[in-house]
Amino acid sequence: MNVVVQNTERADPEVIKGLGECGVATVHEAQGRKGLLAAHMRPIYTGVRLGASAVTISAPPCDNWMLHVAIEQIKPGDILVLAPTSPSNSGYFGDLIATSAQAHGCVGLIIDAGVRDISDLTEMNFPVWSKAIFAQGTVKETIGSVNVPVVCANELVNPGDVIVADDDGVCVVRREEAADVLEKAHAREANEAEKRARLKSGELGLDIYDMRQKLADKGLKYV
Amino acid sequence: MNVVVQNTERADPEVIKGLGECGVATVHEAQGRKGLLAAHMRPIYTGVRLGASAVTISAPPCDNWMLHVAIEQIKPGDILVLAPTSPSNSGYFGDLIATSAQAHGCVGLIIDAGVRDISDLTEMNFPVWSKAIFAQGTVKETIGSVNVPVVCANELVNPGDVIVADDDGVCVVRREEAADVLEKAHAREANEAEKRARLKSGELGLDIYDMRQKLADKGLKYV
Amino acid sequence: MNVVVQNTERADPEVIKGLGECGVATVHEAQGRKGLLAAHMRPIYTGVRLGASAVTISAPPCDNWMLHVAIEQIKPGDILVLAPTSPSNSGYFGDLIATSAQAHGCVGLIIDAGVRDISDLTEMNFPVWSKAIFAQGTVKETIGSVNVPVVCANELVNPGDVIVADDDGVCVVRREEAADVLEKAHAREANEAEKRARLKSGELGLDIYDMRQKLADKGLKYV
Amino acid sequence: MNVVVQNTERADPEVIKGLGECGVATVHEAQGRKGLLAAHMRPIYTGVRLGASAVTISAPPCDNWMLHVAIEQIKPGDILVLAPTSPSNSGYFGDLIATSAQAHGCVGLIIDAGVRDISDLTEMNFPVWSKAIFAQGTVKETIGSVNVPVVCANELVNPGDVIVADDDGVCVVRREEAADVLEKAHAREANEAEKRARLKSGELGLDIYDMRQKLADKGLKYV
Amino acid sequence: MNVVVQNTERADPEVIKGLGECGVATVHEAQGRKGLLAAHMRPIYTGVRLGASAVTISAPPCDNWMLHVAIEQIKPGDILVLAPTSPSNSGYFGDLIATSAQAHGCVGLIIDAGVRDISDLTEMNFPVWSKAIFAQGTVKETIGSVNVPVVCANELVNPGDVIVADDDGVCVVRREEAADVLEKAHAREANEAEKRARLKSGELGLDIYDMRQKLADKGLKYV
Amino acid sequence: MNVVVQNTERADPEVIKGLGECGVATVHEAQGRKGLLAAHMRPIYTGVRLGASAVTISAPPCDNWMLHVAIEQIKPGDILVLAPTSPSNSGYFGDLIATSAQAHGCVGLIIDAGVRDISDLTEMNFPVWSKAIFAQGTVKETIGSVNVPVVCANELVNPGDVIVADDDGVCVVRREEAADVLEKAHAREANEAEKRARLKSGELGLDIYDMRQKLADKGLKYV
Repeated sequence: MNVVVQNTERADPEVIKGLGECGVATVHEAQGRKGLLAAHMRPIYTGVRLGASAVTISAPPCDNWMLHVAIEQIKPGDILVLAPTSPSNSGYFGDLIATSAQAHGCVGLIIDAGVRDISDLTEMNFPVWSKAIFAQGTVKETIGSVNVPVVCANELVNPGDVIVADDDGVCVVRREEAADVLEKAHAREANEAEKRARLKSGELGLDIYDMRQKLADKGLKYV
Repeated sequence: MNVVVQNTERADPEVIKGLGECGVATVHEAQGRKGLLAAHMRPIYTGVRLGASAVTISAPPCDNWMLHVAIEQIKPGDILVLAPTSPSNSGYFGDLIATSAQAHGCVGLIIDAGVRDISDLTEMNFPVWSKAIFAQGTVKETIGSVNVPVVCANELVNPGDVIVADDDGVCVVRREEAADVLEKAHAREANEAEKRARLKSGELGLDIYDMRQKLADKGLKYV
Repeated sequence: MNVVVQNTERADPEVIKGLGECGVATVHEAQGRKGLLAAHMRPIYTGVRLGASAVTISAPPCDNWMLHVAIEQIKPGDILVLAPTSPSNSGYFGDLIATSAQAHGCVGLIIDAGVRDISDLTEMNFPVWSKAIFAQGTVKETIGSVNVPVVCANELVNPGDVIVADDDGVCVVRREEAADVLEKAHAREANEAEKRARLKSGELGLDIYDMRQKLADKGLKYV
Repeated sequence: MNVVVQNTERADPEVIKGLGECGVATVHEAQGRKGLLAAHMRPIYTGVRLGASAVTISAPPCDNWMLHVAIEQIKPGDILVLAPTSPSNSGYFGDLIATSAQAHGCVGLIIDAGVRDISDLTEMNFPVWSKAIFAQGTVKETIGSVNVPVVCANELVNPGDVIVADDDGVCVVRREEAADVLEKAHAREANEAEKRARLKSGELGLDIYDMRQKLADKGLKYV
Repeated sequence: MNVVVQNTERADPEVIKGLGECGVATVHEAQGRKGLLAAHMRPIYTGVRLGASAVTISAPPCDNWMLHVAIEQIKPGDILVLAPTSPSNSGYFGDLIATSAQAHGCVGLIIDAGVRDISDLTEMNFPVWSKAIFAQGTVKETIGSVNVPVVCANELVNPGDVIVADDDGVCVVRREEAADVLEKAHAREANEAEKRARLKSGELGLDIYDMRQKLADKGLKYV
Repeated sequence: MNVVVQNTERADPEVIKGLGECGVATVHEAQGRKGLLAAHMRPIYTGVRLGASAVTISAPPCDNWMLHVAIEQIKPGDILVLAPTSPSNSGYFGDLIATSAQAHGCVGLIIDAGVRDISDLTEMNFPVWSKAIFAQGTVKETIGSVNVPVVCANELVNPGDVIVADDDGVCVVRREEAADVLEKAHAREANEAEKRARLKSGELGLDIYDMRQKLADKGLKYV
């Protein structure tokens, strides 16, 4: 029942990097407005934008044992994604485990629970998106699983899915859809660049998107 | 039923500017402790203090169509104030619409819902006070109204009311009371400057405000 | 019933300083994982780490009168700890009272309610950990007590207890346990330094802590 | 600034009664999907459905003095609507004030704060819709206003507006629109009765509302 | 992208019924403490215990169009499970749609959003577990999907999975594990019956479960 | 560090019973408006009013081992009071443990966490006031303490303190103050009976409490 799945597949590193550069809002739209983790997932410091491959952890509430297990499964460029099996704010993760994860090439953590030592993590350039900042210690008594599908912050994440995270929050892209989503995201960016220029010049969205007649048809009145 | 009210009145620009300089706490006190939007309205970045004239938007939940309609009604120095008709965290507003709003002189956004592209907005110096940061996309299917009275974050805002916003949150001042409130805010600032000097020198509020007898009368005992 | 307790005892200043330097997570662990205030207590600005002696305030909801009473009881190096008797977000504390408190040597405020003028407080280097940032004014009508035991953010704080606060939140240490906790915190730091070096070199926690057999015994399977 | 407005107008009693019989969901739809108070407003006991004329109270946080003032303004069939000027869970209202209000013909209370003595209130058949059930006592130190417009649970309520409340929550109808809304609510009920019969017989909404083509046009696929 | 999956498989009706009779807590334990929907999912009335086969709905926020589509897919004994793609409290479901669903054999609704007409639904014996009770109307503008995997209240639900719901909340059992889980649940019930009798007679859990030595080993002291 | 304190003192059973009959609101007022547990503590079923002596439990998050330890310390008329050391919604308590507790004379449970099997508990007439209803299972891995002071729902509870609980929530009375508080509560009830009669006859609180002049002095205007 409790397993560690080894040798999971990852998406193409170039695709992962590309998705990270596009950012959460663009990727979310490009894949049909899906994949966002809940809005309570906030970065411990701002200014990071990344794409990474998920190593998932299903952990008991207030028990961080499986983090040590998961680190052995990390390959450079991976990100840890931890979902507790019952809601918890406890501080599963701090600077010691971060040191270990970073030594193995881990680029960050997504955790639907608490994190601590955030000033150390900030100095280490180890970004975390979490539900809470809380120093509450955890135990190492009960096992969970690594690299199984988890629901994290109301969204399904499979091992090897691509995580995109920035100041807006966190978005997951299915591994097998990643290349296709990147293509759509690039198309979206190209389209937006042209729109941005027109909007910056003062042209109205009402005219660019040809909305006036539709609004009138819906019954909007100017008074 | 769904209308866009054009040519609404605005307060005197000097009064609006003066209120902005006084800041939220002072203005709130000066007008008799009223007008504060709920504490969940937080800035996406700190360090801004502004006064601006409200262009109001009553929008359906998770539908940002009316933002495009509202931008046409903006005059330089205005701020958009969006209240959804049902609670929503969706990201109604991002860098593209901000580009359009800024091109028309809009100085910011107050939204009792979500916002996205916050790193872009920060770079653009486009401040937003919101309930949530969330990349969730919205639709453009249902109309609302522009420049009608709205209840935003538990406070009534009329078009043309003055919005004061800073790191403490957001306060609304009725357009017709704005000049009077500014005068009271200035009086309050003058009074506080004198108090601040005395308190800084170590004099106690207990003595400055003559509280010792009143506290004893209420029954306070020193032990 | 409503009292101001004068001349409360404080811990040794060197111990207080030492605990502050260890920080919240370490101190919390060193004293057996107790003493953390609730996770909703967040700093108004980041980057501060302090230890200080508590001057406690039991205040009525939305009434800040007792803050003025408490300031007279401050000695240099103290921190104010305010617990309302009923939940409140109101802004009990702003730049004027902070000026007074700072003039008497107060190094900060812990408040399970609201604070305002946070940009001024940031400029003054006066740190606050609070439940809310909210400009809502308070009254001075009802008395409370100073330097009595209070429950603040779900944790008991006695006058003279040591408060440790940083970006992770707030922890309280009993005055009479402070020296002992400091010793344990230093031992913990020494131990962590060695672990950090090994983890940084890539050694796994699984091996350092000898976990592999215990995990197998609990039933963990690698697949 | 703090006033008691006497002799406010009320809607036609037959209209008020009719709106109450239609219930919250129907009235809310009939008036164009507006007027709902926030979803946190819940009844202390279920099974009540009423329409009543609002006597509004703007009260300081944790201070119930104005309730006594408001009761003098009650006419039989009125309902009290209390909005605190800052968020509060305190128990403003209990069985003693309810006894007084009921003696003057008051049919209930809408309060965006706390209520207590709920088993007594249930026995008295005095319904309350509130944000919280909490026994926390209040003071009588600061005045507010009676029969002024208030924002209660994120919705504007004017004195004399019609309140409709049932197990679904609370809805407000503007006094001057009440007769018109009742007419539309009755039309809606008539229409729904016919629909309900068809749906009960097993006919599908897809067919009754002729949705199949529209869904296909939007791109819905059956697989 | 938006699909209606027809002819999904269901578990054996006897197994579904058996799981319903065991109830949420027993089934949750029997399947290894997994499958619980978040604690905010509460019944609109108490006293129901059921097992049913899930017809899932992925719906846009504040848009209930897909409910009509889903009803056509219902077979007797099914339950609707609706997950909005962005958080919403709106009242997607009321007595009219319930009439239609019930006519097709639907035994209830699980919805991570709002429901309305709850007194009618109670009279109809149509149980609902929801995040909110709220009369807010929805639109029919944007399509979603029916009978695709959804994350509802932080838990994955596939079409044809078994839903167990009672006063404790909601639990999901994978269709392919249902028979096995039922067997384990029955074993658990048998074991509990024996334990219950011993506990009722006054025997202590400390002795029945042989805990005294383990507690002493962990360091528990009696004083 | 982890202890079970045996043979704690209890208040006089007649005093405990008397306090229970007075109820939460009266007792809270009688002791100077203190002692209320947070408003999130709600009964799993309504209609109970009780007084009982506290057996306290400090338990790790999501670990219910100490409940079994505590039951051995129960004497007839006691109530269990469980405070987790870190926030948790998990279902620490269900019908099996309730059977054991009830067999030893326990009259209920106060828990700042989750409870499950609530329909069974209701049938057993075993009342619980909790933060959550949630079936999430707990473990038995980490020890805590029994009959030590705990902070439960933001309020300090000592072993042997008197718990008063009813539909309004939960209040704690210090053991050593219990007799005095009961006397004051009875005085309050006597006074309220007279007031209730006058209010029921239609006399106004404004007159009974002689408020008119004070309101005018504060500046209240009738218009």
